Amino acid sequence: MAKSITPRSQDYSRWYTDIVLRAELADYAPVKGCMVIRPYGYSIWEKMQRELDDRFKATGHLNAYFPLFIPESFLKKEAEHVKGFAPECAVVTHGGGKPLEEPLYVRPTSETIIWNTYKGWIHSYRDLPLLINQWCNVVRWEMRTRLFLRTTEFLWQEGHTAHATEEEARSETMRMLEVYRDFAEGVMALPVVPGRKTENEKFAGAVETYSIEAMMQDRHALQAGTSHYLGQNFAKAFDVQYQDAGGQLQYVHATSWGVSTRLIGALVMAHSDDQGLVLPPKLAPIEAVIVPIWKDDATKTLVLQAARALAADYPRRLAIRVDDREGFNPGWKYNEWEMRGVPVRIELGPRDLQAQQVVAVRRDTGEKLKVPLGDAIPRVTSLLDEMQAGILKKAKAFLDAHTRPIDTYAEFRQFHETGSGFANAHWCGSADCEKSVAEETKATIRNIPLSAPEQPGRCVRCGQPSARRVLFAQAY
Amino acid sequence: MAKSITPRSQDYSRWYTDIVLRAELADYAPVKGCMVIRPYGYSIWEKMQRELDDRFKATGHLNAYFPLFIPESFLKKEAEHVKGFAPECAVVTHGGGKPLEEPLYVRPTSETIIWNTYKGWIHSYRDLPLLINQWCNVVRWEMRTRLFLRTTEFLWQEGHTAHATEEEARSETMRMLEVYRDFAEGVMALPVVPGRKTENEKFAGAVETYSIEAMMQDRHALQAGTSHYLGQNFAKAFDVQYQDAGGQLQYVHATSWGVSTRLIGALVMAHSDDQGLVLPPKLAPIEAVIVPIWKDDATKTLVLQAARALAADYPRRLAIRVDDREGFNPGWKYNEWEMRGVPVRIELGPRDLQAQQVVAVRRDTGEKLKVPLGDAIPRVTSLLDEMQAGILKKAKAFLDAHTRPIDTYAEFRQFHETGSGFANAHWCGSADCEKSVAEETKATIRNIPLSAPEQPGRCVRCGQPSARRVLFAQAY
Repeated sequence: MAKSITPRSQDYSRWYTDIVLRAELADYAPVKGCMVIRPYGYSIWEKMQRELDDRFKATGHLNAYFPLFIPESFLKKEAEHVKGFAPECAVVTHGGGKPLEEPLYVRPTSETIIWNTYKGWIHSYRDLPLLINQWCNVVRWEMRTRLFLRTTEFLWQEGHTAHATEEEARSETMRMLEVYRDFAEGVMALPVVPGRKTENEKFAGAVETYSIEAMMQDRHALQAGTSHYLGQNFAKAFDVQYQDAGGQLQYVHATSWGVSTRLIGALVMAHSDDQGLVLPPKLAPIEAVIVPIWKDDATKTLVLQAARALAADYPRRLAIRVDDREGFNPGWKYNEWEMRGVPVRIELGPRDLQAQQVVAVRRDTGEKLKVPLGDAIPRVTSLLDEMQAGILKKAKAFLDAHTRPIDTYAEFRQFHETGSGFANAHWCGSADCEKSVAEETKATIRNIPLSAPEQPGRCVRCGQPSARRVLFAQAY
Repeated sequence: MAKSITPRSQDYSRWYTDIVLRAELADYAPVKGCMVIRPYGYSIWEKMQRELDDRFKATGHLNAYFPLFIPESFLKKEAEHVKGFAPECAVVTHGGGKPLEEPLYVRPTSETIIWNTYKGWIHSYRDLPLLINQWCNVVRWEMRTRLFLRTTEFLWQEGHTAHATEEEARSETMRMLEVYRDFAEGVMALPVVPGRKTENEKFAGAVETYSIEAMMQDRHALQAGTSHYLGQNFAKAFDVQYQDAGGQLQYVHATSWGVSTRLIGALVMAHSDDQGLVLPPKLAPIEAVIVPIWKDDATKTLVLQAARALAADYPRRLAIRVDDREGFNPGWKYNEWEMRGVPVRIELGPRDLQAQQVVAVRRDTGEKLKVPLGDAIPRVTSLLDEMQAGILKKAKAFLDAHTRPIDTYAEFRQFHETGSGFANAHWCGSADCEKSVAEETKATIRNIPLSAPEQPGRCVRCGQPSARRVLFAQAY
C-alpha cells in the first residue's frame, strides 16, 4: 500500500499507472485491453455522472437505453460510419449455442441502432426535437491500451438528438460542447480549449465534430469530449423523415455527443503529483479524513471520541473518514491518504485537544492551518472551495505557460521535439500539410479553437495563405 | 396515442404489452429478444436505481465495474455454473477484424470474472468483508421473450460480497433479501413472499438461493429478486484464500444478489388497470399533471397563468407538467395521462379559478376532490402519500385473497387449473414430487417462505411426511 510512486521526472507514463493502481482507481482485467474500475475510481465516475446528468436534464434531455448489439447490416447503412468503426468491433457470431444468421456487433457507438429506432418515433414536427441521452458501455478493439485513457471496453454517455432544422441541430451541438466545457472547468478544474476538428479528425459519419482539448502535465493534449453535428447523414441512411407544419416530408437533422471514463485518466494526469492523486474537491469521494494521534490508552479514548464527534457533525456523512486503524502510525496514514488524494487531512492529537484545535492540511499545496475545533467543519468547507478554485487556477496557469503562437516551421519542429505543449500556428487547410506535420513532428491539429480570431497568415508548413491559427499538439 | 388498451378480462397478456408500448415504457428492438427502454420507462428505472443504491450504500456497499467479456475458461471453472449459464450465452469470436484465440462470453452474470479479480484483492482477514455492487447490462439468450419480463439483454445490479465466515456471509444473504423486500413493499407498493428456493430452483453455483415472490393480477407469481449464499464454491474455483488472525489460510465465503429491469414489468402487471398504467407515486416520473381548461382566449390566458404559477410552486420542478398543448380537448388529455399513470390530475378551468379552487383526481381510485387553490400543493403531496399506501394495501388484499392452504391433490389441481393463485401446501422435499407437480399442474415451488411455521403434514402429491408448507404457483 505505502509503496512509493515513480516520480514524473523519471517516467511520466509509469507515474500515471502507479497512481491509478495504488490509489485503487482501477485494475487490469484478464481480458485483453479491459479494466476493472475499483470502488474508489467508480465513486469518482458516479460523481461525474451526477454532475453531467443534472446538466443534461437541465437542458431538456432524458435518458433511455438502446441494445448492446447492432446487426451488421445496420452498421453498413452509413458508408463513412462503417468504414470508421467496423474494423475495431467485437463480433458476436454465436448465441444460445447456435451460429447466428447475421453477426451482431457489440456497439462501438450507437448512432445506427438509435436512428433505426427513431424512424418509428418521429413522424411529425410535433415529435421534434427528440433529446435523448444514454449511459452505457461500449467496445472498441484497441491495440495499445492504457487504464482509463484507452481501453477496449469503456463506460460513457452518448447523447443523440433529432431536430427539424439545421440551425437548431447546430445550436444543440454547440450547447452540449459548452456543457462539457463548463463541466470540465467548473467540476474537473480542467481548463480546456473548445474548437472544431479538421475533416481528417472528425467523427465517422459527422458533418462537423467539435471537441474540448485539455493539457496534461507532460504537455500533451487529451481530447476530453466531443460534440457532432451529423447533418442528415443518419436520417437519410435510416430514412427518418417528418412532416413539417406545411405537410411536406423533410429529413431530420441530428447531433451526437459524448464523454467517457477516459475523463478519470485526464483528472489523474492533470492534477496529481509525485505523492499521488490530487482531486478537485467536487469529485473527491472522501473530502476529509481525520487522523487521530494517541500515545496511550487514556489519550486514545479522548482523541477518538473527539474525532468521531467531529465526523458525526460533518454534513455529508459518507464523505468523511476517521482513520482509527490500529497498527499504523500517523505518518504512514498521512502518506496513504495523500496518495489517495483526499483533499483535507485533519490531524487531532492530545495537545490539539487540550488547545481545542485541529490541524488541517491541504492536499494540493501542503499548507497547514491551525483551526479552532468549533470552526473545523465550516473551515473545511471553505477550504474545499478554495482548493477547487486553486487547482483550476494552477492548471490554467500551466496551460497558458505552455501554449504559444509559432510562425516558423523550424521553431515549430523544435517546440514539438521537446514536447513543449500547444502551438497556435497557421495552417492552409490542406490535408497534405496536416499529414506531413503529423509525420514530421508527431503533432496533430487538435482543433480549430472557437476563440481563434480571423487573422491572415501563412501556413507554418507550406507558406500558403491561412485565415486563422489552429491548435497543434502531440496527443493521447 | 389515444388508442384503447385491450381489457385484462379479454387478453391479459395483450393488456400488458399494450400498456408497455402505449405508455411508451419500452419498444421492440431490431435484435431478436432485445428491447429499447424509452425515456418514460427509463425514468422509472432511474428512480428504482436511486432508491436501491441508497439502500446498498447505507448497508456499506460500494459500486464498481467489471468487464463485459468473460473468457470461456473462466466460465468453466465452477462446474454447476457453466452448466447453468454457458448454453444461454452470446459468444464473441472475432475482435478487431481477427478471430480470437479464446472465445469471449458476454456476461450472463459476473461471478466468475469478479472472483478471478477478488483473488488479487483479498489476502488477509483485514481485506474482509468486501462489499461490492455493480450496475450493468447482461445477456442471456432467451427463446421466448417479453418486454421487461424476459429479454435477451437486460439491465440489473449484481452484488458480490466476500466474507471471512459462513455465518457472516449467510447474514449478508438475508440482509440483502430484506433490503429487496423493503424496497418492493415500501417503494414499489408490491407485497412479496420472501423464502428459500428448492435445490432444483436455486442459482447455478449457489449453496442456497432466496427469493422474493410477488403476485401479478393474473394470480401468477413473479420472482422479483434473489439473494444467494454461494458458500466457498467460487472461492475454491478461483482459489481465493485469506490469512486469518491466527495466520491460517482459509477459503472465503461468498454471496451474490440481484434485481433487474424485470421489476418494471412487475410494477406494470401488479397495479395497472384497463385505463392504463398505475404507478406508486414514489416511482412516478411525473407526479402530477395540470390540465388547464379554457373556452376562449380571455379565459385561456387567465387559466394558463394560474396553472403555470401553480406548477412553478411545486417543490420538484421536473415532476409536474402543465399540459398546455393546443388541438387536444381536456377529455383526450385526461385519457392520455391516465394511460401513462400520472398519479394526480389537476383540472383547472375558468369556474375553478373564479372559485379559487382546483379539482384533483386520483389515478388509482378515480376519486375527485375539490381543493382550495392555496392548498393545492400540500394536498397533492399528502394525496401522493395516501396513494402510495392505498396501492400497497390493495395489492396486499389481492395477494391475501388469492393465497390459501391446500391439503388434497384434487383441490390442488383444480386450484391451479383455474389459475387461482398461491397455494401453501405440504411437500415431502423430493425433487420427483416437485417435478410431477410441475408437469401435472404447471405450478412450481416458488419458495419455502421464511414465515412458514414448522408444522407436520403430508406431501400434497405423495402423502409422505412434510415439516412445513411451501409456496406453489404458476409463474412468469
